[in-house]
Amino acid sequence: MRNSRRGAVDPFIVMDVMEAARAAEDAGRRIIHMEVGQPGTPAPDAARRALASAMQDDALGYTVALGLPALRARIAQLYGTWYGVDLDPARVVVTPGSSGAFILAFTALFDAGETVALGRPGYPSYRQILRALDLNALEVESSDANRLQPTPADLAPHDWQGLMVASPANPTGTMLGRDALSDLIACAQERGAAFISDEIYHGIEYEAKAVSALEISDDVCVINSFSKYFSMTGWRVGWMVVPEAQLRQVERLAQNLFICAPHAAQVAALAAMDATEELEANMAVYARNRALMLEGLPKAGFDRIAPPDGAFYVYADVSDLTKDSRALAADILEKAGVAVTPGLDFDPERGATTLRFSYARATADIEEGLARLQAYMAARRDM
Amino acid sequence: MRNSRRGAVDPFIVMDVMEAARAAEDAGRRIIHMEVGQPGTPAPDAARRALASAMQDDALGYTVALGLPALRARIAQLYGTWYGVDLDPARVVVTPGSSGAFILAFTALFDAGETVALGRPGYPSYRQILRALDLNALEVESSDANRLQPTPADLAPHDWQGLMVASPANPTGTMLGRDALSDLIACAQERGAAFISDEIYHGIEYEAKAVSALEISDDVCVINSFSKYFSMTGWRVGWMVVPEAQLRQVERLAQNLFICAPHAAQVAALAAMDATEELEANMAVYARNRALMLEGLPKAGFDRIAPPDGAFYVYADVSDLTKDSRALAADILEKAGVAVTPGLDFDPERGATTLRFSYARATADIEEGLARLQAYMAARRDM
Repeated sequence: MRNSRRGAVDPFIVMDVMEAARAAEDAGRRIIHMEVGQPGTPAPDAARRALASAMQDDALGYTVALGLPALRARIAQLYGTWYGVDLDPARVVVTPGSSGAFILAFTALFDAGETVALGRPGYPSYRQILRALDLNALEVESSDANRLQPTPADLAPHDWQGLMVASPANPTGTMLGRDALSDLIACAQERGAAFISDEIYHGIEYEAKAVSALEISDDVCVINSFSKYFSMTGWRVGWMVVPEAQLRQVERLAQNLFICAPHAAQVAALAAMDATEELEANMAVYARNRALMLEGLPKAGFDRIAPPDGAFYVYADVSDLTKDSRALAADILEKAGVAVTPGLDFDPERGATTLRFSYARATADIEEGLARLQAYMAARRDM
Repeated sequence: MRNSRRGAVDPFIVMDVMEAARAAEDAGRRIIHMEVGQPGTPAPDAARRALASAMQDDALGYTVALGLPALRARIAQLYGTWYGVDLDPARVVVTPGSSGAFILAFTALFDAGETVALGRPGYPSYRQILRALDLNALEVESSDANRLQPTPADLAPHDWQGLMVASPANPTGTMLGRDALSDLIACAQERGAAFISDEIYHGIEYEAKAVSALEISDDVCVINSFSKYFSMTGWRVGWMVVPEAQLRQVERLAQNLFICAPHAAQVAALAAMDATEELEANMAVYARNRALMLEGLPKAGFDRIAPPDGAFYVYADVSDLTKDSRALAADILEKAGVAVTPGLDFDPERGATTLRFSYARATADIEEGLARLQAYMAARRDM
């Protein structure tokens, strides 16, 4: 049987943690899940009610490739509400999750052999999707001084045709301020490269509002999703905002690659956008969890952390504890019953000395997890 | 703004027909839709009830990348029921529609620059997806004598690393018998090429059961979907059966490219598989429609048609009427109010003299459409 070279993407290292956690649960242990990258909450009640009703009187066949017109209009409206940006709904493309948007953006923008620059650490699927599409991922190491976000100076020495950033970022939760984001967009545009902004964690921010690349330029590709703030991970619906000059190409690719995003998810997403009360209640939980983490993790001994401006992650430098984050994560799971993610998925080199803690779940779990981590670290110090 | 070369895929010619049909409907005309490639029926009632219930007590977050274990097991069971094949559920991969399965199969199997052979006429997205993934589509012209399916003799002169067939096929509805399918699989395996069988129309067959490539070999990649027989187009859920040696590569690609197929659609699909009574009632409608088409189309004057063994299409040679199927389709829409698909989407050359008629909708529409087509052709002869 043949296997392609480009399909030989790396495994997720966190999968080993998840498998071990499942085995421990099967054996009767209670595990606290700080490894997961998704809300524990379902889609908003209004979203589920809208779908239940649509299932009664609509066949829910294919939608047009760019998505339900009402949903595209409602997304455009969000840019007015969140950023004061007046966005033409024609530039909004509904996609099968942000995953679908990455595939669409990369195939619409780049030919085989071209290079897309990324900051490291970063979401591991960026580089794997690039590889599967025969593109090169150029990962530049970001520094603590720059909040683990890339800068024009990091990127300047290299050759690349596209630049992709995420703010708030996974795994760090750090954001790019308006100036930093503007500088990166200018840096890409000066060399005629495409700029892609992954804004999937927008809406989940704590002290300042995240800045959208669309506030700065129209000649950018913005990717977002209903997975995180709107609490709809498993529904696989997201969106992309593209420059007008790219619309026809993206539409034809979407018709052929996906036909359309799931119709049921589009119906639910439209209703989710008005479920402000429920979504803000979720946000209050994240804010409470974050405060607990910012207090509890340093108290336990995890005190070298990136400033978590948004998302629901804390990325910790554990180089004083280990040179093998995988072994440390396994030990924490075994001794403390807390599942955490070794940094290696996000940074194959420096990730050997980092961990990602997620606080996306219920507050009671966060409290229990922090207590266990404190006990674990105390026992470790006593050894 | 940059646009890639590989993203410059062809537009769907049928889109012009659909746009003109929509404009006519907006102007108050009643249009009969024989251009659509999807059932008019919703997902089975049991499927919708299962989802309504799951929405009450499950957050419906990400599933594992290969799909819900219960769904994979139930799909494996279908191979026993339909074909007498004993299939290990571990080889079943749940995908975001057959579209997602194509992307997965092509990236798992082929590197940029490699060639996949296809019969022409065929489903247009095959060649567009291949192009978007920097692969070459080698389209070999099939002949009426071979029911518009490719043969080893057609393929022998060419260099290719993969072969993809569809049975029943779109746009023709013709099937490959066991011998023809075996010969094609052997032809691919002899040269170390991958064999991909698109079985999306299985279940929608009239006089003989369609043969699955899995009845013949384990070293094939079989793609199917809940869209057609299970009447769930807009839900975007399908599946792929892969050889064991390919599973890890496909799993890692699926994790990165899609995360998972829509959870809600997976829940609905599992219940749809037991909705036999409703699905067989749909089949009875297709069978009745097909009988009407096989009687009515020749009576109207469309008598050079491929034998429609399965699916819900009739592909007609109209070379005695036109050298411009696009103009003919536009004329039929304007004068008869019947939307049909010009063959050019399926065969950029010979499709200039073919039309595809779909009979996926309600029988009353089919009757009305045939009456209109007969009147149109009679008026044409009288000109």
